[in-house]
Order: sequence, then C-alpha cells, then structure tokens
Amino acid sequence: MRNLLLTLLLCPALPAQPAGQAIRAVLDRQVADWNRGDIRAFMQGYDNSDATLFVGTSVTRGYQAVLENYLARYATRDQMGTLTFSNLEVRPLGSDHALVLGSFHLERSTAGGGNADGIFTLTFEKKRGAWKIIADHTSASPPSRHD
Amino acid sequence: MRNLLLTLLLCPALPAQPAGQAIRAVLDRQVADWNRGDIRAFMQGYDNSDATLFVGTSVTRGYQAVLENYLARYATRDQMGTLTFSNLEVRPLGSDHALVLGSFHLERSTAGGGNADGIFTLTFEKKRGAWKIIADHTSASPPSRHD
Repeated sequence: MRNLLLTLLLCPALPAQPAGQAIRAVLDRQVADWNRGDIRAFMQGYDNSDATLFVGTSVTRGYQAVLENYLARYATRDQMGTLTFSNLEVRPLGSDHALVLGSFHLERSTAGGGNADGIFTLTFEKKRGAWKIIADHTSASPPSRHD
Repeated sequence: MRNLLLTLLLCPALPAQPAGQAIRAVLDRQVADWNRGDIRAFMQGYDNSDATLFVGTSVTRGYQAVLENYLARYATRDQMGTLTFSNLEVRPLGSDHALVLGSFHLERSTAGGGNADGIFTLTFEKKRGAWKIIADHTSASPPSRHD
C-alpha cells in the first residue's frame, strides 16, 4: 500500500527530461551513428513518416526518400567523412515541438568530396515520448577560406 | 438581456480563423507589400523581436538586422522586382506555432540582378492573436533552364 501510494505520488511528479536535453541527445546520437558509417541508424533521428521533409536545394518528401538520398549521396565511408554539429540552439515551440538551429561540418578527404559546411534548421516533434525530426532544412555554406 | 445572452452564447463559439488561413493572409500581405516596394510593411510579417532569425548562407539575428539586410540587398525597385510565393504548405505545430514550406520567385530585370528562385521554411508563432514569422530559412535554388 505504501509503495502504491509512493508510486502514485511520485510518478506524475517525475520530471520529464527537458526538451533541450532530449533533443541534444538525439543529435549527439546522430553524429555518433554517422561517424560509425551507419546511415540507417542516423536516420532514426527522423520521424519515420511520409510527411517527413528534407529541404535543400529541392524538397524531398518522406522518410524513405530522405534515406535513399543520404544513401546515394554518401555511398562510401570517404563521402560520409566525419560529421560535427556546432552552435546548437534549441527553441521550444509549445510542449511538443521545437526549432533547432545549428551548423554542420563534414571533414572529408579530397577523394570523399572535400570538406563541407552548412547551416540547418530542424523542426522536432515529440511523438510517443521520443523527439523526432519532422522537417530538416539544410543550406550549404560557401566554402570557408580554410578549405 | 437577450442580446447579452446571445453575446455570451455566441462569442466563445465564434470560430477562430483557422491557422492556415490566417498565415496565408500574412504571406499574401507580404507579397503585396513587397510588390508595392514597401520593405518596412513587408517586415511586419516578422516578429518584432531580437530573437527573430533569418537563415540564408549565414544567420541573421533580430528584427532590426533582418530589416537592414533587406534594405541593403533590395535597395532599389529594380532589385526588389516582383515577388510571388507558390507551393505553400502550412503545418500546424500545436495551437500557437506552424511550419510553412514554400517557394519564392523574384521576377527581375537584368539591371535588378535577374530572376531569382528559392525555397523557404518559415516558423510562425501566434503572438497576441497575430501570426508572426519567428524564423525564416531561405535557400536560393540553382538557376532554372528558363533563366
């Protein structure tokens, strides 16, 4: 009885992981998955839905099409290179959505296509307790002087 | 008394303008303001806040900085050209936010810099009853064959 009471008292009060922390964990995991060469694991950061959007110089619709684009564009370990995210900012949009601004850097050999940089805005949605990217808009930056 | 009763009965039931409709009205107004050559009126679509973001090939922070960029980049009527938005999709994110995907076309003379096209994702927030852009990520598209 006492345990039940404690459960009832404590469970609703257990603090949910703050959105910013949970979202950063998703992105950290994406980076680790990418740098292990596992695009399919990396894709788990995205919502597995036909509505998932990837916007670059054109619009790609649906998880499967986004996955196929990544697989085609980063077909080799050299092309995948080593990914880092920086300047991450998470802005909650109500309780179940968030906007994330960030930069990426891809360190790559010349054979892999050379270094690449860009800025992204991600729209996250909390679905069944998990934060997923529902829209990714990524812009390549002009090459820096160090390239 | 009857009027009061009617007011009490009807007011809470008056349907709020659907988010999609209200947001499209903001964008329609932006296009009209732009095509009248009025960048300051166009800017009223954005949230007048230091947190307002514009992401292109770099990140601009704050309403004032976004305004100044527009004024510098589109200093003449020729440079402003004629704006159209197309392929608009509004995706509500909870009750007070929305993601908008769309394309823009700028019809311009050679003197104005020539035609320009691109894709944008806008994050809208409903603030004091008005839908405002809190983040704009715009990517220029590669020139089409018709340019």
